Amino acid sequence: MPHRSIQQFREDRAVGQQALINCDHLGVKRFLRLDSATYEDGALPAKTKELLGLVASAVLRCNDCIDYHLEQCVKLGHTKAEIIDALNVALVVGGSIFIPHFRHAMLSLDELLGEKP
Amino acid sequence: MPHRSIQQFREDRAVGQQALINCDHLGVKRFLRLDSATYEDGALPAKTKELLGLVASAVLRCNDCIDYHLEQCVKLGHTKAEIIDALNVALVVGGSIFIPHFRHAMLSLDELLGEKP
Amino acid sequence: MPHRSIQQFREDRAVGQQALINCDHLGVKRFLRLDSATYEDGALPAKTKELLGLVASAVLRCNDCIDYHLEQCVKLGHTKAEIIDALNVALVVGGSIFIPHFRHAMLSLDELLGEKP
Amino acid sequence: MPHRSIQQFREDRAVGQQALINCDHLGVKRFLRLDSATYEDGALPAKTKELLGLVASAVLRCNDCIDYHLEQCVKLGHTKAEIIDALNVALVVGGSIFIPHFRHAMLSLDELLGEKP
Amino acid sequence: MPHRSIQQFREDRAVGQQALINCDHLGVKRFLRLDSATYEDGALPAKTKELLGLVASAVLRCNDCIDYHLEQCVKLGHTKAEIIDALNVALVVGGSIFIPHFRHAMLSLDELLGEKP
Amino acid sequence: MPHRSIQQFREDRAVGQQALINCDHLGVKRFLRLDSATYEDGALPAKTKELLGLVASAVLRCNDCIDYHLEQCVKLGHTKAEIIDALNVALVVGGSIFIPHFRHAMLSLDELLGEKP
Repeated sequence: MPHRSIQQFREDRAVGQQALINCDHLGVKRFLRLDSATYEDGALPAKTKELLGLVASAVLRCNDCIDYHLEQCVKLGHTKAEIIDALNVALVVGGSIFIPHFRHAMLSLDELLGEKP
Repeated sequence: MPHRSIQQFREDRAVGQQALINCDHLGVKRFLRLDSATYEDGALPAKTKELLGLVASAVLRCNDCIDYHLEQCVKLGHTKAEIIDALNVALVVGGSIFIPHFRHAMLSLDELLGEKP
Repeated sequence: MPHRSIQQFREDRAVGQQALINCDHLGVKRFLRLDSATYEDGALPAKTKELLGLVASAVLRCNDCIDYHLEQCVKLGHTKAEIIDALNVALVVGGSIFIPHFRHAMLSLDELLGEKP
Repeated sequence: MPHRSIQQFREDRAVGQQALINCDHLGVKRFLRLDSATYEDGALPAKTKELLGLVASAVLRCNDCIDYHLEQCVKLGHTKAEIIDALNVALVVGGSIFIPHFRHAMLSLDELLGEKP
Repeated sequence: MPHRSIQQFREDRAVGQQALINCDHLGVKRFLRLDSATYEDGALPAKTKELLGLVASAVLRCNDCIDYHLEQCVKLGHTKAEIIDALNVALVVGGSIFIPHFRHAMLSLDELLGEKP
Repeated sequence: MPHRSIQQFREDRAVGQQALINCDHLGVKRFLRLDSATYEDGALPAKTKELLGLVASAVLRCNDCIDYHLEQCVKLGHTKAEIIDALNVALVVGGSIFIPHFRHAMLSLDELLGEKP
């Protein structure tokens, strides 16, 4: 996988998300709402749940989902060391097949941290 | 995943398919024939089986396979609403990890429907 | 996997389903409602969508999900030949790793068809 | 999957673990040590990492791994509500194919909480 | 997963295989023949291809398929050390989620080696 | 997936690998060392284990991993026919969902063989 910059990811995602919202299917709309609600504060704080979403995305090996949750993790205040420690759990559980995605995640993470004021 | 247009998919697929056919392995050749035969009319009509191939490709999250079956589904007369209803099954069974592929599928589907005379 | 009879599946599922409903989490409750709604008549008829659910469960290799959708497919009037034709799509897309689940599905299907009046 | 009690899981796991340790392969031994070290306090506390291990096991759909991490989560003081909130992330990311494993996890969790003094 | 003995696996498999053969679907029959032919001597010897089948089954985490290929590997003369070295590749590529299946494989392997005259 | 040339793969991989090494996490470093050691001569020769790594990567459908192991297989002297025979095992075990990756692998393999002196 050639690396895609976070900026490019955001632009591509926005176009695709619009196409998805346009699909006008009640089940899809409900799923998207349910998905957003999942990461709000509950018995666990949002900050922890974004880390769970990141690791789930990592072992299922989806770069778009990894980039999305990385952005949320940085926004909610997780440090670089914490995020790497979480991705290390994904590496051990998911195995070396995760390594190309780990490389991608590290490049994305550096970009995201570089954006912070 | 940056979106790839259907036209680009067809060109890339043609090059790769030629390389695969050139591999000159009896087992591979038989598998390719078996694969084609799978979607012909049988106890179930081809039109239904292309929908099954689409949903199987969707939950296994392969954009090339999704694009291929989308093209067949449109060719065999499935409406946009039917295809979205099928992809919604994939979304619920396969979870939010399918969302980036769902976005891709919607962009591909719009292209495919735009090609129809 | 030792085969489990449909009757045993129903009993085990009922116990587990009660434990799941007891978990009292709004997100989980919403997901379960969304899941049920997915297979109701829409742009595609319920009968087709149960077949899609079956093939999705088959390529993701979950025997409980296979048994559940087999039961619905039989209830909605799919013939044995139609169900096998659908599972053959799962076999080709998902590969020989699906064979043990295909064996399980055939034993379940025979039980389900034997129950019909 | 018929539910297996936590007590039975522990006994089966002990027998298998002994067979694995007996295999006398340097790479395997190193992997097992690396695996244990993964969940020790680091940039993230052990308590959070066990939750990450649970969600990773959940979306990859391995009941043995789910039971193992559930036991650790309970031991490290996570409440029932927190564990369910974590499993709900797995449900949304991983989809309805996770439901049979969620049922299993709820039965295991009730057993584990019932053991607490 | 409670361990199932090789003898029990063979009996369960025979019953399921008969049900599969009875399904009387041309595509399924062809797939089963193609599957058998895959492991015959070709550019690579059968002995190597059974090891490939074992590792593929291992990372896809199917105990029935693991047991089947273990039996073939032992029959074709692979030593215990060679089989463990192959499974170690699966462990590193596939991650700790493979560990419960590795335990199962070691118990099966001991049974299979104990059967040898 | 648009095909990426082996040369481009090497450049992208080098950048990502550096970012991964920079992450400065003891668990990650240990995993990377363990990963390299896995493919060294042991009970099985390195040449066989690279083939196992290739098939594992193939059924888990990771193009970067496929390219990496293809390069090693060619370097260690496997012929084109042997590599295709190994990938055919992946095709049968993993199913038609592997076909787009098989196409990619054939293009990569032709490039790699073309580089040989």
